[in-house]
Formats: sequence, C-alpha cells, structure tokens
Amino acid sequence: MSQTMTAIEIEGGKGPAEALRAVEVQRPEPGPGQALIKVAAAGVNRPDLLQRLGFYPPPPGAPTTLGLEVAGEVVALGEGGGRWRVGDKVCALLGGGGYAEYAVVDARHALPIPGALDLVHAAALPETVFTVFANVFEHGALKAGETLVVHGGTSGIGTTAIAMAKAAGAKVIATGRGPDKKAKALALGADIAIDAKAEDFAEVVKAAGGADVVLDMVGASYFDQNLDALKTGGRIVYIASLGGATLEVPVMKIMQKRAVITGSTLRPRSADEKARLAAEVERVVWPWIAAGKVRPLIDATFPLVDAAKAHAHLEAGEHVGKVVLVA
Amino acid sequence: MSQTMTAIEIEGGKGPAEALRAVEVQRPEPGPGQALIKVAAAGVNRPDLLQRLGFYPPPPGAPTTLGLEVAGEVVALGEGGGRWRVGDKVCALLGGGGYAEYAVVDARHALPIPGALDLVHAAALPETVFTVFANVFEHGALKAGETLVVHGGTSGIGTTAIAMAKAAGAKVIATGRGPDKKAKALALGADIAIDAKAEDFAEVVKAAGGADVVLDMVGASYFDQNLDALKTGGRIVYIASLGGATLEVPVMKIMQKRAVITGSTLRPRSADEKARLAAEVERVVWPWIAAGKVRPLIDATFPLVDAAKAHAHLEAGEHVGKVVLVA
Repeated sequence: MSQTMTAIEIEGGKGPAEALRAVEVQRPEPGPGQALIKVAAAGVNRPDLLQRLGFYPPPPGAPTTLGLEVAGEVVALGEGGGRWRVGDKVCALLGGGGYAEYAVVDARHALPIPGALDLVHAAALPETVFTVFANVFEHGALKAGETLVVHGGTSGIGTTAIAMAKAAGAKVIATGRGPDKKAKALALGADIAIDAKAEDFAEVVKAAGGADVVLDMVGASYFDQNLDALKTGGRIVYIASLGGATLEVPVMKIMQKRAVITGSTLRPRSADEKARLAAEVERVVWPWIAAGKVRPLIDATFPLVDAAKAHAHLEAGEHVGKVVLVA
Repeated sequence: MSQTMTAIEIEGGKGPAEALRAVEVQRPEPGPGQALIKVAAAGVNRPDLLQRLGFYPPPPGAPTTLGLEVAGEVVALGEGGGRWRVGDKVCALLGGGGYAEYAVVDARHALPIPGALDLVHAAALPETVFTVFANVFEHGALKAGETLVVHGGTSGIGTTAIAMAKAAGAKVIATGRGPDKKAKALALGADIAIDAKAEDFAEVVKAAGGADVVLDMVGASYFDQNLDALKTGGRIVYIASLGGATLEVPVMKIMQKRAVITGSTLRPRSADEKARLAAEVERVVWPWIAAGKVRPLIDATFPLVDAAKAHAHLEAGEHVGKVVLVA
C-alpha cells in the first residue's frame, strides 16, 4: 500500500467549484477504534458545497478534506477496530476526508453493504439515510399512517425521505419547484406531489388532511405555510434554511396546534451519538434496503479527480438523486 | 336541590375585575357522561383574567361562566356517569362554569381527592397539575436527573412545576422577578433560584450545566436567553407569551442544539384528549400528592361572591401560589 494517495483539496482554502483539484497527500493511518477504507465511491453532499464556500468549517479534529460518506473495502484496522476484518466491504459516515483514495473511519460508523447493493449505491447511503432517519423518524417521530411533507422531494435527501417514509407505512406529500420535479416526485413514490412554483402547497396539504411531520430545508420563506399545513401535534423538522435563516414564530399558534419546531445537524454530533445512530439505522433502515423498499437513486457519477465537475453539477440544481465520486 | 344557583357573570360580557358580579341563574343538569358537582371551591387562573378581558373566548360548547377547575361533591349523574356515585368527593377540570354553586363536568375529567387534601387545596389542582404535566412531562419529556428551568417560579404554575419536577427526580432552577420571589422559589424547593430583574438567568443556568427543559410563559423577551441556556437536545415549552408573542428563531442554532420549541394550551383539547390526560395525571401525579411530595400552595381564598376581589388580587401579581374561590 502506497504511503501517499490522491485526495481533493480546495485551492486557497475556499472558493468556487473550480478550486477543487486533485493533489498527492500522505495516506492516513487508522488509530485506535478506526478502520482504514480503500475508497471505491464517495458521496457528494450539499454540506460539501457549503464547506467549499467557507460557510461550514469542519468540526474540531475532523479532516479538512471534503467528503462525509464513502463505500469501499477495509484494508487496515487500528487497535480495537470492532467487528471488521480486512477485506470487508463497508459504507461509512465520516467527519470528513471522503474525497480521497483512502479514508479512516470510526469502526462504529461503518455498516455492512445492505442487500446486493454495489459500492456506488452504497456510498450514496450514509449521509442521507442517517440524516433522514435522525430527523424524520427520531426528531420528527413519524409513525405508520401519518403524513410526511418533504420539501425538495427530488433532492438526495428528498428521494430518500420519500422512500423511507413509504417503507415505514406513512403517506408522503412531496414538493418540488416545476412540473418536471413534481412528476419525478410522483414517480419516486410520493402519494401526492406539488409544484411549489405553481401551487400553494399549504392548501394542497390541508386538503389532503394536513401534515404530521414536515421535513424542511427552506426555512423562513416556507414557515407560515408549513405551520398552517400542520395538524394538531405536528412537527416541523429543519435540516437547512436555504430560503431564510430566521423564523418569525407566533407563540400562540404553536400552543394552539401543540406544534413542535425542531431540527438537527449530523456532522457535529459526538462519535458516541453517531455510533448510536448507526446501530439504529442498521436495525431499522438496512432491512428496508435489503428488501428493495429503499434504494439510493444515483443521478450521476464522476471520477474522483473531477470533483469540481461534480460540484458544478450539484450547484446547477437539476439533479434527481445523489451525485457520487468514483475512485 | 334548588333549580337556580348563584354564579358569577361578567357584566357587559367583558371588562375590568369589578365587572364580575354574582347573579342567580338556572342550575345546570348533567347530560350523558356528565356529573353534577356541588362546588365547594373553585380555582382562579390566569386564563380566567384573559377571558374576562375578552382575549380568550370559551371554546364552542363551553359555558360562558368563568372557572376551569372545581372541587366538591357529586350530587347527580347523567346517563353513563362513569365511576362516580352521588356523595363522592372529586376535583375536576372544566371547560368553564366553575365560578358557580354547581357545575357539570365530563365524568372522565373528574378525579378522586388525592391523599387527605381538603377541598380548597383540591380545587387548586386540576388546571395547574394538568398544565404542568402536559407541558413539562409530555411535551417537554422531562426525565429524572435532567434540569428544568421554570420561569415565574412563584406563580400557581411555577410552584406546581417546582414540586412536580422535584418529585420526578429532576433538578429545578426557578426564576422570579425580585429578591422576595427568589427567596420564595428556594423555600418552595428549587435547587437554584434567580432574580431575573438583577441577574442574567442564561448565565446562571449555563454555569449550572444548562437546561434540558424550559417552561416559559414570557415568550419573545426571554427567547434568546432560553435558547442560549439550553443544552443540546433541550426543549422550550410555551404556555403563554406575556412578554412578546412572536419569537425570532434562528434555524441554524435550533439545528446545532437539536433544540425543540413547542407549547400547548389545555382548554381547547378534545374531551377524549382531556380524559387521556386525566388518567395519566391520576397514574403519575396523584401518588406524589398522596405522598406529600406535591402540595398545592394556596395564596388566598375569597368567597365566591367576591370573585372581583380575587381577580384584582391575582392581577396585582404579588401572590405566591393559587387563589381559590370558596362557595
């Protein structure tokens, strides 16, 4: 195994997509409790774009190299590397460092490849599945028979949320901007899809009985409609605020609806908390994937060295499903 | 039993405390599933003041007479009056109508008098105990070993929240405005008390390790400090917004803290939901009262016909504990 490897660096520390370039760096060594993975595929996620722009610095101790999820083969183990053996195929959630030929991972944050998935599809799982599971099923407490509203239903998060909520026996209403995205959301399994450019989504959701859980990445500009569309006891869960960072929240309406406003980030959680989440995901979601009920949707793959093109593609916003780098 | 009774009316439909006057009205009859209670004592609550001012109209179907809780004796039963027999002593949560010699109640919303409590103390229980239980323990999900911050620690709600949280094994930090209220909150069992006029409560709470749950009736003017004082995963639960009705909520901070903003009202809940809550309160809280761990604190009693004086006393804001009308 070579002592160096190819990894993607942000030239100048931050910048546009073109600032991403392939460089030769020292290969990392697995420490105690870690596994070294030879990366076959690495998922590209929105937080990567924000980090590249300088808006989302890596948490203390995390690699500065981009990349929050990979799939590949275990090639070395630190002391106490847990359940893994060299040669195991895994996918894993990372604190960073996925855009590289090798990545180290907390052994508890790696999971077996579910079902008969190939490594490109497996690499598209951790960030979105962990995010959807934590936000929709833990913070949002979605239950069978309830209604989930997913904004951005054709995004990586959106497509996964539609599939996971359907697998859990919930009704799904997805929004997207434009008739194409509406049609795609329906094709992806949403019970109802809404073109949020042309329709008032709150009216459509209310006519369908209201929302128990709303998964939102828009923020302020959707808040009033979200709250209006919410059933008594409903939950709005934030994973971003692309359309306005500050909500104006009427306390009395929250009280009257017994509404819950919450949200979470994944990356800054403690290693123990991520390990707990990984165990829950393996217990609840992995069987859905093995049964073919949830399948990651790949929009496009790019060679690792073309990470800049992958970012530009994601920033264009026309993708449906995930973008993956292939080593 | 006379066909008429004394009840308190709001002269002109709404007005100042002096608008309350005793009138002779028809005695109500218990319908199916209801019990008729000869009222011995009726609790006075802040929503009564708001309703008197015209800000909090009774929900559809509720009596227009004030009064959300009573204690007394069952004197008649409608068809299907549940577990009660004529002569039983009960306390009950009402949709309204408590400021009167007789009140009808959903039989499921009445509870036995816990322990050896007299009827004046029992009348002070339902509204505050149901409110604290629903908000702190259900919506706020306070657990043993966690920290509850109670604003207005010497109010009826505040004193009850301190006692119930301590009975549940939580740590309690209470705020009040002024050194007297701080001292009283400590005497009532709070582990830490804060004079919110003189001290920055967020700093004190953070120095004590942060809040898992905040029970808030202040709203906007306390929101930034509440959020600042919250631990990761903490919950802010609203039961009023006396200090500003619209919160400015930073989505990213909610996500980073995995914070929950929620709240509830009690009165507009369905009869079935109140019945569920009553059963939970009897199961969880009644043993605390029977064991002397939670005891309603009575600030003052007034004769029913002096309801105007009771309202003026509550509006003066110097009470510690509950105000009760005695028939």
